[in-house]
This record gives sequence, C-alpha cells and structure tokens, in this order.
Amino acid sequence: MKNSSFLITLLAAALVFVTYKWVDSCNNSASAPETARSTAINDIMSRTSVRSYSDRAVDSLTVDTLLRAAMAAPTAANKQPWRFVVITDTASLDYISENFGSMKMAAEAQLAVVLCGDVTATFDGEGREYWVQDVSAATENLLLAAHSVGLGAVWCGIYPISERVSKFSALLKLPENIVPMACVCVGYPAAALTPKDKWKPEYIRFNSWN
Amino acid sequence: MKNSSFLITLLAAALVFVTYKWVDSCNNSASAPETARSTAINDIMSRTSVRSYSDRAVDSLTVDTLLRAAMAAPTAANKQPWRFVVITDTASLDYISENFGSMKMAAEAQLAVVLCGDVTATFDGEGREYWVQDVSAATENLLLAAHSVGLGAVWCGIYPISERVSKFSALLKLPENIVPMACVCVGYPAAALTPKDKWKPEYIRFNSWN
Repeated sequence: MKNSSFLITLLAAALVFVTYKWVDSCNNSASAPETARSTAINDIMSRTSVRSYSDRAVDSLTVDTLLRAAMAAPTAANKQPWRFVVITDTASLDYISENFGSMKMAAEAQLAVVLCGDVTATFDGEGREYWVQDVSAATENLLLAAHSVGLGAVWCGIYPISERVSKFSALLKLPENIVPMACVCVGYPAAALTPKDKWKPEYIRFNSWN
Repeated sequence: MKNSSFLITLLAAALVFVTYKWVDSCNNSASAPETARSTAINDIMSRTSVRSYSDRAVDSLTVDTLLRAAMAAPTAANKQPWRFVVITDTASLDYISENFGSMKMAAEAQLAVVLCGDVTATFDGEGREYWVQDVSAATENLLLAAHSVGLGAVWCGIYPISERVSKFSALLKLPENIVPMACVCVGYPAAALTPKDKWKPEYIRFNSWN
C-alpha cells in the first residue's frame, strides 16, 4: 500500500510537470507571430542576386506562387499593366545566355520569367511610363517570393535598352504593345550567398535636401 | 489495493497522453521555420494601399527599419541611385495634401518618404532610366516592410508627371540631379483592410506569346 501511494504521488507529480511544460511551450509559441511578422523584413534584408543554380527542378506550383506574388504588387490606378512570359524551353534559355553578357546564368537556370508591360493598359500622356514602376514592383515581389521559398533569382534588365527589347520581343513573339522589361532567372542556389550591405544613412535627408 | 492499481493505471495513461501531446506539439513547431519562411509571401499577399491612419506616432527606429529595407533592394550594376527625403513636418504634409488630389491622405499621415533618383548616379545613354526600376524596387521594399511591422502605407506617383516633379522639387529644395519619383505616406492604419485580388492567370504565357 505504501509502495502504491508512492507510485501514485510520483505519477501525479510527473503528470503535473509534463502538463506544466506543455502549457508553457504553448504559451511560448504565442509569441511566434511576432517573429514571423519580422520575417518579411528578414527576407528583404537577406535576399541577394543569385547567378548560379543547382540542377534541382522547380515545380509548377512554386512558379505559380512567384507569379501570384508578382501580381499582388501595387499598381497605379489599379491598371495592372504587367504581363509575364515564363521560359522553361532550354533552347530559349541558351539563346538568352549566349546573346546577353549579363544573362550568362540563363543557361543553368531552371526557368526565367520575362516581366513585360502592356503599354495599351497604362496611362496616356505624361503618365505613360508609370507601367515601368508597376512592373518593377511586381519584379521585386517575385524576387522576394523566390528567396522566401528557398529559390535564388536575379533581375536582368531589358527595357529601356532597345537592342535587348527587340531581341526579347523576337524570341518571345511579343506583339508591339507588350514591352519586355526584365528577365528574372530562377533556380535553387548552387551555394549560400551573403547579401551586400547597401545601407548608406547619408542618402537620407529630413524635410528638406539642405 | 484494487483502487490504487486503478489510480496508478489512470495516472500512467494520463501521463502518456499528456507527454504524447506535448511531443506532438513540439514536432509541429519544428515546422515553424517553413511557416515563417512563407510569411514574406503572406506579407506580399496581404499588403494593400492604406490611405487612412490613426494618430499613433511612428518612432524613428521604425522609420530606420523602413529605409534599411528600401536600401536592400536590387540595383542595376550596384549603382544605388536611390535617395530619400523623410517628411515629418506638418506644414509640408499639409501642402502635399492640398496640392495633389491623389495625396489627400498626407495630412493625416505620421510621415511621408519621398523616394528620389540621382540621375548622375545611374547609367549614361539608353540605360539612363534604369534608376526608375531601382527606386521602384526600393519603394516596394519600403511598402512591404511597413506592412510587415503593422504600419499602413500608400505609393503616390510623382515622376514622370512634370508638374508633380517640379512642385516636390521646390518643396524639398532638391538639386536638379535629384528627381522625386514617389511619395509614400505612412501611419498606423485607421482600420483593417482586405487586399484586392489581382490574380489573372490570363496574364501569363509560356515560352512564347502565341
């Protein structure tokens, strides 16, 4: 009987202890949203241009996620002038790699996304070039989304360099109103990279330049 | 004795159950990095333009965070042509609100960040306008960082509308090489907002437009 009492006490104490630890760990995970909240900033700060990729395939659901992020960008007067051509065709990726010195990495990328602007879907007059800002915001979202799922990507400029615009337009058979702005090469990084530190407080002024 | 045995069995079973649940919850939290990883995408998908703010102040450390995020944007050939003027002066915010129909919210914003490009810090020739893409990427980072710390913000276009450019240049006493591109109004949101769904799969083509 004495042994039983001892065992009951021991088990009860163990039960109380384990329950306490469990509840405690649940309370700690209540602070998770705070950590998670800052992860967007962590991703912004840790993203860097990735120009070398492994041969790991990128599934189509992931590509879909990148494009959803791109289309969630802000867009002046909700005009959504962005258009996207996803390139997975090896011959096209090789063509890009061979024709543009700054896009050599295209040959080993799993895919490239060419972000374009539909110049008939933007403003008339002075605001016509706003499409560039909308498509740039979409491009940055796509880069951040890629980094956030463990992919590496690099933004290669096309527009406003006319030779690049005409070569990409021919390659992708773009109609005249669709202007290719950027070619983002995508793949799983061949190696972990450290981002450049571009913080320059001297680029900030308060209320007036002088 | 029979009762003791029953109690021991009951306690042991409870101990096993609670321990199992605890271990299980620990295993689930092992997948937290995955959830956190996707939070950048969550922030991208849940961000929306916020045009109405509470009177809660924004501390300078938070403003610093937003500017660090902006300067972590990609920039062609690492030229970093971005420059920033932070406006906290009430008279200036009121001036912006009164002079630009699309920037009425400036009057109740805690601050505005005017994102500019230094056109002497970019490319010559056809690539001269690349600064717009760099500053746009910085603007998107700033908006995402603001959303991610619970602030609300809205991107108000300045460049390339010449009247807006000259009024902002005069207000901020900008030298001729510094072109104001966007005015981002910032404050804690007056209300929770649902982002627009801008997903349009018909904007995506594969390998060729046709």
